[in-house]
Amino acid sequence: MAEAEYARRLAGTRARMADAGLDGLLVANQQNRRYLTGFTHADGDFNESAGWVLVTPRTVSLITGTFHLTGLEHEIEESGVTLLLNDDALSWDVAAKAAAGDNVRRLGFEKDWLSYDRYDRVRRALPAEVELVPCDDFVKHVRARKDDAELAVMRRAAGIADRAFARLLGQIHVSMTEREIATRLEDLMRAEGADSASFPTIVAGGPGGALPHAVPGDHAVAAGEPILIDFGCRVDGYCSDCTHTFCIGEPDPKLVELYDVLRRAQDAAVAALRAGVRRGRDVDAAARAVIAGAGYGDQFIHGLGHGVGLAIHEYPSLNRLKIDTPEQDAELTRVESIPDATIVTNEPGIYIAGWGGVRLEDMLLVRGDTVEILTERNPATLLRLPA
Amino acid sequence: MAEAEYARRLAGTRARMADAGLDGLLVANQQNRRYLTGFTHADGDFNESAGWVLVTPRTVSLITGTFHLTGLEHEIEESGVTLLLNDDALSWDVAAKAAAGDNVRRLGFEKDWLSYDRYDRVRRALPAEVELVPCDDFVKHVRARKDDAELAVMRRAAGIADRAFARLLGQIHVSMTEREIATRLEDLMRAEGADSASFPTIVAGGPGGALPHAVPGDHAVAAGEPILIDFGCRVDGYCSDCTHTFCIGEPDPKLVELYDVLRRAQDAAVAALRAGVRRGRDVDAAARAVIAGAGYGDQFIHGLGHGVGLAIHEYPSLNRLKIDTPEQDAELTRVESIPDATIVTNEPGIYIAGWGGVRLEDMLLVRGDTVEILTERNPATLLRLPA
Repeated sequence: MAEAEYARRLAGTRARMADAGLDGLLVANQQNRRYLTGFTHADGDFNESAGWVLVTPRTVSLITGTFHLTGLEHEIEESGVTLLLNDDALSWDVAAKAAAGDNVRRLGFEKDWLSYDRYDRVRRALPAEVELVPCDDFVKHVRARKDDAELAVMRRAAGIADRAFARLLGQIHVSMTEREIATRLEDLMRAEGADSASFPTIVAGGPGGALPHAVPGDHAVAAGEPILIDFGCRVDGYCSDCTHTFCIGEPDPKLVELYDVLRRAQDAAVAALRAGVRRGRDVDAAARAVIAGAGYGDQFIHGLGHGVGLAIHEYPSLNRLKIDTPEQDAELTRVESIPDATIVTNEPGIYIAGWGGVRLEDMLLVRGDTVEILTERNPATLLRLPA
Repeated sequence: MAEAEYARRLAGTRARMADAGLDGLLVANQQNRRYLTGFTHADGDFNESAGWVLVTPRTVSLITGTFHLTGLEHEIEESGVTLLLNDDALSWDVAAKAAAGDNVRRLGFEKDWLSYDRYDRVRRALPAEVELVPCDDFVKHVRARKDDAELAVMRRAAGIADRAFARLLGQIHVSMTEREIATRLEDLMRAEGADSASFPTIVAGGPGGALPHAVPGDHAVAAGEPILIDFGCRVDGYCSDCTHTFCIGEPDPKLVELYDVLRRAQDAAVAALRAGVRRGRDVDAAARAVIAGAGYGDQFIHGLGHGVGLAIHEYPSLNRLKIDTPEQDAELTRVESIPDATIVTNEPGIYIAGWGGVRLEDMLLVRGDTVEILTERNPATLLRLPA
């Protein structure tokens, strides 16, 4: 990553800090940390942070420890961040001291990404005259606009997943379990060059697919039922994400019907984006109208899509106003504006309890007035593998 | 899971609530949610909760949505929890309404497991007369004591990992990359009956092992260098965890030396536990003294171990007072008491920048005055695979 790119990321973050009247920002989100510093270490769990970043108008620092950094020191060279080790101090004390040393008066923190406990510790570590301000995730807005290097990596990830899936199709047969299929696909993605899966692969045959985030189990896939596979891989930290639904042998007629509805819903979303629609809920509405028109509005139980990048789900959100309150409206407004050079998913689905689920998902690159589909689309008519 | 077991879990949680003067507890941690209700859905990310649990002296409720529940309804039958759907309301409003309906006056929440934002939303949703109280994680204390069914599952997980590792050893050869070895091991664990890996498998050959949580890369393992593999599998939600270090061909003499130190450090920890030591820092100290005595105290850069169960890292902690402050002391005291029928890891390690790492890790079941080693130990002398 070039120094100039880190400078751009930092400038974007600082501009948003200035808009919010902040002269300090404590970054806890792990993808934001990587994006600003180059440091790749992941967090273990929510209470196991591999580090924080402190941004001020003059400085940018990575707060981490030898336990997380040994052997990765080279990763932060290009970003030029100052390293503040927490080996012999507590992270909140290190952050507080650094903020005070840089005359920070209003320190923001990411209210979605810091636990109450960590917030409370930072607050108590700060001098009384420093204000600690709950903030939206500013860096996610900067991350949403992908640069050319990021786009190249994400195209590569999408291509790897496509090739792995094409190979998988030649190996699937009746009586393979969901779990076996998921394992096979993850192996194929690694064989094609992925670092790992970008999330636990979803394989659902028949009724299990009614749960959008189904866990592959011992169900053996059977002829005629919908077989839903939602998968992606990670390459150099960046994620791909797509979903295919198909069947073996002669499909249940309901499956053919739903598949066609969802293809048309995807087309409607792409048409809206091509027409310049940039508010997430309006793109969602374009697809949802097709599904509702076919009588399945109540069975499309999630949003149409989400941004993809260093995180599998990130800004922006293509979703509906699920609950009609001013608070929901404000929340959606905060996360749904589609900027240029963004990658989002387009993944309408229909879920029927006791029967199963159908979902089709592509990754779209939205740039200028163009929409480019980065992943191999589900074909115009339902794929039927030989029984 | 038997109803009686859920009743015991709930009683243990309520006893701790009563001790803290609370008549309500909002549970956000995903393992705690599963433990109290049987609901297996995992959280996507920290801001993507699959549900909360509300416990009062009279009721226990699962707050979730159709998106997460469809097809999993049977999971919560045995626990008998009340289902509160958030399909048409916001989770904090559902929780606040249920708490008010049950006359809750002091509602606790897990300060480590709720983001500041979620805390703030719950607080604003509650009537002014209800106090919202930041709490420690009460349920983790209940979880630490494993019942017989849990022990059986965890023994199974440990055995699967052992068998997979034994098979892996027959397949490793010079020029295999860390990534290839990790993939092979994860496949073998699934072939032996695991649902998945319990965390991303660590394989580090040579210098990369200096980072305790190394990510497998393109490094091809070489003769003589330390090869460190930290791995585990998940079975019915429960984790196993162990680490082996070995070499191919004739070992670097340093490796032989460190291996011996760590074997003795492990023995010292087990001896302390057998002698009835139940304070985490004291068990850590027993192992650390061996390592420090050999001159590597500064290279043992993490705690000795941690509890294992539904989470890969859970209560209790076997760690040192890393930073000598009253706050650190209080924090460690809060998480280090080893209860009966607990499973903890025993994993001393020595890390040398530019050279590599050696770590040996077993899972121990501490019960009464016995300590049972559940995983296959690293052998008394360093394993040398044929070159």
